[in-house]
Amino acid sequence: MTDTAEFPRDSEHPAGWLSPAELAQARGRLPILYVDAVPVRVDDSGDVVAVALLLRVNAEGIMSRALVSGRVMYHERVRDALVRHVEKDLGPMALPQIPASPQPFTVAEYFPTPGITSYHDARQHAVALAYVVPVAGDCRPQQDALDLAWLTPEEACADDVQLEMHGGQGVLLRQAMAHVGRLP
Amino acid sequence: MTDTAEFPRDSEHPAGWLSPAELAQARGRLPILYVDAVPVRVDDSGDVVAVALLLRVNAEGIMSRALVSGRVMYHERVRDALVRHVEKDLGPMALPQIPASPQPFTVAEYFPTPGITSYHDARQHAVALAYVVPVAGDCRPQQDALDLAWLTPEEACADDVQLEMHGGQGVLLRQAMAHVGRLP
Amino acid sequence: MTDTAEFPRDSEHPAGWLSPAELAQARGRLPILYVDAVPVRVDDSGDVVAVALLLRVNAEGIMSRALVSGRVMYHERVRDALVRHVEKDLGPMALPQIPASPQPFTVAEYFPTPGITSYHDARQHAVALAYVVPVAGDCRPQQDALDLAWLTPEEACADDVQLEMHGGQGVLLRQAMAHVGRLP
Amino acid sequence: MTDTAEFPRDSEHPAGWLSPAELAQARGRLPILYVDAVPVRVDDSGDVVAVALLLRVNAEGIMSRALVSGRVMYHERVRDALVRHVEKDLGPMALPQIPASPQPFTVAEYFPTPGITSYHDARQHAVALAYVVPVAGDCRPQQDALDLAWLTPEEACADDVQLEMHGGQGVLLRQAMAHVGRLP
Repeated sequence: MTDTAEFPRDSEHPAGWLSPAELAQARGRLPILYVDAVPVRVDDSGDVVAVALLLRVNAEGIMSRALVSGRVMYHERVRDALVRHVEKDLGPMALPQIPASPQPFTVAEYFPTPGITSYHDARQHAVALAYVVPVAGDCRPQQDALDLAWLTPEEACADDVQLEMHGGQGVLLRQAMAHVGRLP
Repeated sequence: MTDTAEFPRDSEHPAGWLSPAELAQARGRLPILYVDAVPVRVDDSGDVVAVALLLRVNAEGIMSRALVSGRVMYHERVRDALVRHVEKDLGPMALPQIPASPQPFTVAEYFPTPGITSYHDARQHAVALAYVVPVAGDCRPQQDALDLAWLTPEEACADDVQLEMHGGQGVLLRQAMAHVGRLP
Repeated sequence: MTDTAEFPRDSEHPAGWLSPAELAQARGRLPILYVDAVPVRVDDSGDVVAVALLLRVNAEGIMSRALVSGRVMYHERVRDALVRHVEKDLGPMALPQIPASPQPFTVAEYFPTPGITSYHDARQHAVALAYVVPVAGDCRPQQDALDLAWLTPEEACADDVQLEMHGGQGVLLRQAMAHVGRLP
Repeated sequence: MTDTAEFPRDSEHPAGWLSPAELAQARGRLPILYVDAVPVRVDDSGDVVAVALLLRVNAEGIMSRALVSGRVMYHERVRDALVRHVEKDLGPMALPQIPASPQPFTVAEYFPTPGITSYHDARQHAVALAYVVPVAGDCRPQQDALDLAWLTPEEACADDVQLEMHGGQGVLLRQAMAHVGRLP
């Protein structure tokens, strides 16, 4: 999950949304709804030719690769949360093609306790609706991301890249490639 | 959504779960994660032959028909929430066949404001992962339900039954029938 | 299913494809693989705002509305068949966004005997993989189609339009709307 | 794909089905519709705990592991073909729970030319609708299979087992595990 990406937004939250303190409390009491997006380039027949991964450095200076991920806000539609998080991470010119159907390709359940599912988030119990999102426009790393790398499905599923993904996002990426018929 | 079904359970909640007051507060601040289940009987080739609807009377004495629905608790897997709510509403002998895949057939977004989606819940912003769940065992109405009726897909989609379903559950039922190839 | 749409192409078929006589024979002996596409316009968040229906007149002079539909050829990928049939029916500037995943929203089984499934095709046993396909470009009726109409999901599911669709395509259209969360 | 499994049946085919010679001809001219099934054991909450693989020896004496797979016959529903092939390969007491929805988790396109997709079948262009099928009963290898092995998802996805699967069925098995949330 994206650790830092929401903070610049939290000061802007409208009435009715949670303050950081309230959110911290809720995170220990309720499953928190997320969307996870696997940004891809597709060719004219819809075949996935590349996957975008964000390169981040955390507070300890450790590099990691990440998918687009973020919380669904109160009174926000899932499809609007997808647009917001893709633009937050890939920039306002990314031109995401949000799926017409709300049916996700999987549901990733991030537990604070490791080992219950393939996914883990020490901060919270997050449940993410996961979508493959083709992006047609110009993508640039935003905010806390150092870089944005386009990898082939084969490269994205290779061991070296998988080792740089955390909390089960490497598994989720391979599930996405399985879904689009590009699992190596 | 099921209005009353969770209350008998809330006194039993383990440490870390929300008290009713805290839940009430969270409901105005965060999307709350639900599971919706459409309980069905299937024949030997998996074809849906009947749908179970619960008959309830609310505090105002108005009758309504409802699907199985309920909240996902903190640190509870979606598939365990499905088992719990099916058994809560259909009894401990229902023998639900929980889907092997976490991919729901749709995601139903119940907004407190009517008209944003097909679903509405005046109490909260609830996001429900919706599954068709075949039940093989003996089903009996529990707790607050007056009755449990088995209808054919055609009967369940008919206008008179649809009018007795609230908050968009009639639409959700028809989406389920569309998904299993039994939309009249 | 599209009755006439393949004929102009059959003279161009490469070695290994069936002659019309061979195809006629195979149609009585094997299930024939089809793709059905529901062409839609979506807004920036992927929500379906309109559906395209083709207006055709058959040999008896009867008007009907139809989805994009056609056979998958020998040695042709499903996604290439989708591109080919969308461009055949909507024109070369339609700019279809073929889904990244080969998972169809349903499988429509057209039997020569009515009543076995919701779909019927007197000529053959056809099994169609059905997809919702957003089109971003300029669409124009081609060949045998008189017109191409853009309808809202509500209009497309209304009784008068449903009555003009044949062989179960009206049901398939409503299944598509259920899948994208736009079933009225 | 299953090489030999259909032959004992072909002598029983009713009028209208293809003779072996006609089938051989059609295989070079048309995509042939198949179903692929991944037989699994699930626990009470639907979680996959084991996968069944068939052990076969081909005419050259080479051992291989295979999924349940077979052709959809003329005038046969996909769900009936699933029942028939599961019972053909796992025996009449397998008690398969055929999915209520016809939506497959993927479509596997086996081309006679290797490299176009992840799947390959030298004999034909076969397009398989792929389903995960829980089996609740007693399973025994039938006909041409030497053995039936139950493996954990981790074992089934391990390199040594994957190497014993041919034509892309190893990829398909891992896609199935991705779909049910059990990809290692």
